[in-house]
Amino acid sequence: MHTPAELLPIIEEAISKIEYPKHPANLYEPIKYIMNLGGKRIRPVMVLMATELFTDNVLKAIDVALAIETFHNFTLVHDDIMDNAPLRRGKQTVHEKWGNNNAILSGDVMMVESNKHLSKVDISVLKPVLDTFNQTAQGVCEGQQLDMEFEQRNDVSIAEYIEMIRQKTAVLLGGAMKLGAIVGGASNENAELLYQFGENLGIAFQLQDDILDVYADPDKFGKKVGGDIVANKKTFLHLKALELAHQNETACLTSTDQDENDKINQVTALYDQYQIKELATTQMEAYLNQANHALNELSVADKRKQNFRMLVQQILERES
Amino acid sequence: MHTPAELLPIIEEAISKIEYPKHPANLYEPIKYIMNLGGKRIRPVMVLMATELFTDNVLKAIDVALAIETFHNFTLVHDDIMDNAPLRRGKQTVHEKWGNNNAILSGDVMMVESNKHLSKVDISVLKPVLDTFNQTAQGVCEGQQLDMEFEQRNDVSIAEYIEMIRQKTAVLLGGAMKLGAIVGGASNENAELLYQFGENLGIAFQLQDDILDVYADPDKFGKKVGGDIVANKKTFLHLKALELAHQNETACLTSTDQDENDKINQVTALYDQYQIKELATTQMEAYLNQANHALNELSVADKRKQNFRMLVQQILERES
Repeated sequence: MHTPAELLPIIEEAISKIEYPKHPANLYEPIKYIMNLGGKRIRPVMVLMATELFTDNVLKAIDVALAIETFHNFTLVHDDIMDNAPLRRGKQTVHEKWGNNNAILSGDVMMVESNKHLSKVDISVLKPVLDTFNQTAQGVCEGQQLDMEFEQRNDVSIAEYIEMIRQKTAVLLGGAMKLGAIVGGASNENAELLYQFGENLGIAFQLQDDILDVYADPDKFGKKVGGDIVANKKTFLHLKALELAHQNETACLTSTDQDENDKINQVTALYDQYQIKELATTQMEAYLNQANHALNELSVADKRKQNFRMLVQQILERES
Repeated sequence: MHTPAELLPIIEEAISKIEYPKHPANLYEPIKYIMNLGGKRIRPVMVLMATELFTDNVLKAIDVALAIETFHNFTLVHDDIMDNAPLRRGKQTVHEKWGNNNAILSGDVMMVESNKHLSKVDISVLKPVLDTFNQTAQGVCEGQQLDMEFEQRNDVSIAEYIEMIRQKTAVLLGGAMKLGAIVGGASNENAELLYQFGENLGIAFQLQDDILDVYADPDKFGKKVGGDIVANKKTFLHLKALELAHQNETACLTSTDQDENDKINQVTALYDQYQIKELATTQMEAYLNQANHALNELSVADKRKQNFRMLVQQILERES
């Protein structure tokens, strides 16, 4: 069995070997660009990890891993247009470099590329693989829609927020796990448990993201601490503070004319006053517990689950 | 066997029965909107016609017909964003009604919906159906990319133009035919011939479009004659005139400050002078001949081909 760190070069090599048509160059160059901007490759790693629970031939799932990573990068290209984001992983976004129209179209063709990778799986699992992938892709689109709508709303509840991050982020981790399981030959029960594992881990991952944005060590975080606060982003922490704090204390959460550092300091102080970090951590741990519970239920020899426990630990301890 | 006119209500009924999720409403309402704006449904009709060449159970291909129509409408949603088009079939475009971001995302989820329809075909043909669909979808994206790039170029050749309309328009008609054939149980040879039939018909169809824009009967055309001329669109007629006319005659083709009707009259006179309509018609007929040739080669009883000949005739004689 491979550790997550050992699976990474397998994925990087497979990505580097994908051949795109040469023409039209402006359609395919953005795909190569975004696919090679780096990133943790956590989704394709999860596909292969799930497959390896059930078979020693991890490469059986490499096409599904590429499909998932291509789909994920497609969502980044289109999301960055919608968010008007200038940078992605410290580099120009695709729409900044090639223009919005080109970015829309390159994204579209990435969706086709995902489906091409997917269609290479063994015919014996093709139908359940397609069904799981399509359901996952649809969920991710719904999550992005909710995220956009939340920006315009002032009455988003914590429950709605959790549902949004479940769709936008966690469904894809769950889907990656389930797809890997299906390709590896898992039973329906095991595939479903791995979906549960991935989805709960995904929600925990996003809550951890929300916490790190405010409480990360600036030397290790890799980007400016407090970015979500400055952007008035409706994170778990933001919504929880709105819920708990007195009305006359919450102006800083939504202010747009404050000095950035003043705003960050004031919001962080408010979070501290209401122990928002602890509440978010408790919530995150609840989802990690659910992930662990699904893992424990899995009918697989315990030693094969070791890499999964490591993954949970890494997420719990990450600093960026 | 059904005539194209008899297949239409079968398709309309199937479209009316598609169930989309209720939430998020803003993600799915645009899909219902564009899918019900009407249109000739020529692509799904072609799917069913091809299927019915090989089986009496035309409904075997209804999911593929829906996949093709959903995909086609997805391309309209995204193309209209890229072209900044306010109207589609006389109604507001999706991005005008819901905004660009919403239109991007609804389009994305339409691609997923297409794949969901597609995955319902019988497992025995699933793999070739996916391969044909993905290749078709990729071709359409490449065609749209070329079309966008041509807008910025002043040296587009006729050969390049034909290649662009082949990808952007004809590949989807060829793909529709081939998909229908595969689902109907056609041999590879027959499926390939039907692809050739559809692709050549598609190129002829687009050339006919170019001709009608200038020479249609205004009472029957349904939109303003000369729209392509006013927009300086690089149609076959435009490019042929640039090729044949003297340099000192071609200013009207690319002018932007002329009175619209003056420009239309002047360009039409130039076309007449160089017999551009006749040249375009000859070219169109050459592609129709190739389509007919593929049809003749098809190993199917001649009386089953009758509807196809009717379709060719309808395209030849259409006035809008």
